[in-house]
Order: sequence, then C-alpha cells, then structure tokens
Amino acid sequence: MASKFTEKHEITFYECDVRGRLTLPMLLNIVIKTSESQSDSFDRGTDYVTNLGLGWVITQHEITINRLPEVGEQVAVSTQASTYNKYFCYRDFWIHDKDGNECVKVNSTFVLMDLVTRKMTSVPEELIAPYECEKIKKIKRGMPLTVIEKGEERPYRVRFSDIDGNKHVNNARYLDWMVDSLEYDFLINHTPTFVNIRFDKEVAYGDTITSKSSLETVSETLNKMSCHQVILDETSCAVANIHWQ
Amino acid sequence: MASKFTEKHEITFYECDVRGRLTLPMLLNIVIKTSESQSDSFDRGTDYVTNLGLGWVITQHEITINRLPEVGEQVAVSTQASTYNKYFCYRDFWIHDKDGNECVKVNSTFVLMDLVTRKMTSVPEELIAPYECEKIKKIKRGMPLTVIEKGEERPYRVRFSDIDGNKHVNNARYLDWMVDSLEYDFLINHTPTFVNIRFDKEVAYGDTITSKSSLETVSETLNKMSCHQVILDETSCAVANIHWQ
Repeated sequence: MASKFTEKHEITFYECDVRGRLTLPMLLNIVIKTSESQSDSFDRGTDYVTNLGLGWVITQHEITINRLPEVGEQVAVSTQASTYNKYFCYRDFWIHDKDGNECVKVNSTFVLMDLVTRKMTSVPEELIAPYECEKIKKIKRGMPLTVIEKGEERPYRVRFSDIDGNKHVNNARYLDWMVDSLEYDFLINHTPTFVNIRFDKEVAYGDTITSKSSLETVSETLNKMSCHQVILDETSCAVANIHWQ
Repeated sequence: MASKFTEKHEITFYECDVRGRLTLPMLLNIVIKTSESQSDSFDRGTDYVTNLGLGWVITQHEITINRLPEVGEQVAVSTQASTYNKYFCYRDFWIHDKDGNECVKVNSTFVLMDLVTRKMTSVPEELIAPYECEKIKKIKRGMPLTVIEKGEERPYRVRFSDIDGNKHVNNARYLDWMVDSLEYDFLINHTPTFVNIRFDKEVAYGDTITSKSSLETVSETLNKMSCHQVILDETSCAVANIHWQ
C-alpha cells in the first residue's frame, strides 16, 4: 500500500476569488505543494530528480469538487502516489475540511522527461521505490476531452510571475488563462464541480497565447460545461473541460 | 504600547519567483493576511468595518528588504498598528527568519473610506480602540516618490483572479504589473532592497491599465532604481520606486 502524506493548510484571502472561495489555479498549487513535500520527505525532491537528468511533467489532472474551501478554512491536503507503469505515474490528491468531509479529489498523471533530449523516459526504480506504489502493466486512459473548433478568444502574454522555481510556467497558470476567458457574471454565479485538464506542450516567458473557450449546456437541469484550449502558433498547448453548477 | 501580532508562515513554491525567492506581490499578500488575522482576533474584521459603512484602503507601503525569504523557509510574520491620527492609521509589518533575523520591514498607511460617498472618513474610536495604538497629531509624510515622464509601456487587463474577497483589485497586483514590465534578464540578476509604492486610484475588472517603467542608475556603485506608474485613461492609479542590487 502506497504511503499517504498529509499537510494542514489554511486557505488565505489571496488564494480565493471575489466570493472568498479557493480558485482553481490555487487549488492546483496547494495540492502540488503537498506532493513536493512528500517527495522531499523521501529525499526524492527536485535536486534528486535533476541529478538523474530528469524532470517531472504533469500531463493530466481530473479534479472532482464537492465543495470549494473558503477563506480562513483549515483544510488537510493529502497525496498518494497510487500506481505506475513503465512511463506513467499516477498520483491522487484530496482536500478534506476540518470535519473530515472530502471537498476535492484530484487524479493526476505525471511523466518524467529527459532534460537533454526533452523526451519522455521510463521511470527509474530508485526514484519511485520510496513511494511504495504498485507497478501496473495497464496504461490508464484519461477521461476523454471535448475539443472545440470555435470559441471566444483572448490573448495572454506569459509573465515573469508565471514562471516558478522549476524554471517552467507553473501549470496552474493555464487554468488561470482558461477561467479568466469566461464572463464575470457567469463566474460569480457558477461553481465548478469537475475539471479535466490535459497539458500537451509547454509555453515560455514572453509567448502570447490564445485562450479559446466555449460554453455548452449539457443537460436540461441547467448544468453547463465550458470547453477550453490554450493555443500558441496554431499548436494546442492545453485542453480542458470544466463542469459548472 | 500597541499590541503586536505574529503568525508563522511557510514560503510556498507558488509564492516564489524563478529563483525560488518570495515575490514582491506575495510579500504584500503575506503581511496583509497577518493584519487581517489580528483584526479578526479583536473582532474588528471585514464584517465589523463593513457594518460601520466603511472600508480600509491602503495608501502607501514602504518596504525595506534585507533578504527575500526562499521557498520552504519557515518565517514569522508580525504586525502592529503603531499610531494613528484623525484620518490616517500607520501599521508596521516584519518578516523574520527562523533564526530571528529581520528579512523584511514594511511601514504602511491605511485610511477608511465611506462605502457610500467613497470619501475618506475619520477613524472611529470604537474601531481603533482594541489595537491600543497611540493617537498622534502629526500627519506622517511618506517618503517622496520620483515620478517619470517617459518610460516603457505595457498593457495589462484586470483579470477575474485579480479581484479579491473585498471585491476590489488586490493591491499586490499593482506591484505585479510594475515588476513584470521590467526585462527578464534584469529581474533574474537583481534583487529589490527597497520599495516605495503609493496607491492613488482604484482600477476595476475589465480595465486595461498601462504599466509604465523606467530604469535609472542612482549611484556609481551600480545601484539601480526603477520608477513605475500604473495609468488608466491618463490618470495615475499607483506610483512606485524600487531600489535594486
């Protein structure tokens, strides 16, 4: 059984939106911080991975949201490297409130990239061993994503503050560009219940990306789904579907 | 003697720049969070102030930086409402590292705005009493600011994620627009030692502001000062000077 790692976290005002609820980009930041803490605790942090000539790359997150934590709440953020195969590592995250209710669950897929060839590489046993997760043969297929042909388009230039200590654009920023492309009135009247985001290609400082979005009504009970794509020079860099209530 | 309030804080990767050092906008967020916690502890939080028909507005920060804390560091963030007069409240903040060294000191000026008339209002005794700070006659003049005529200009649209739970643009964002307008190569090779920022006028969701900046050499020892202005429709919304080493 893979070991589970939990950290306490207080939701701050600067992690919340205008309604005082945790934003989707900050939700990702908070859970990723916990996986970094777990890796550090096993001496498998960034330095160890870099010394192998490798870097972690997130390829997909599926985020199920029962309730978005609010400003001032004390939550428990947990993570577990669940399974892995030759190329893919599967990691789960949870955010629980102080009464133990599950607010959020995230299923994520990570791969390792060779820092020189920029190609995906197989998972070294010495790196994965401390997490005690099960090796599987199966390659899990992420939930399918609806990709839009047309939509509203907004430009976003990659800023200095979008680059994190790993010298890459923080993955959470893609979700920021996606959410921001929706209208204010929609955002203050709807709450996300599910997010499926896939990362295809990295963008860099100074790039101006296009955030394309389209809003679809998916059921007669007024549930909505927004479809998103981050595009650079006609290449898709990230795709997401967000369900709203 | 005014009461001092201290909270522990762990510097996270998403509060840091590409070099793993706390960013200036996040520095502001972290200290402001501590003043909100102190106000909550006195039952003088946002609800209390709103019920008086008032809102806090920050007019100036003077930030002295000995060392920017780095990712993973445990710091102590302290605050104290030092003095006040009829209209102005003066508050100090400190960030100390785990060895007790002062990393950052911030001197801030706050005023109260009437939520209906949008005008500055005198400080009610019932609001300020619990902080036990000294009432003074003197109006402190903030350090003078160098305002530039010409500079590099970059546009920034106010995003949904720039608005915080107080339904205003988070003050830290102005500093984000200012810093981002400098060149990447400059930012990774210099560290801020002092920031003086004055807020003149609020911007709103959807506005596209101009961030104007100019870099000056202020001494022969190669210290630099960057001068910044956030402008909307030819009106100055914020002015700052940043010293770099």
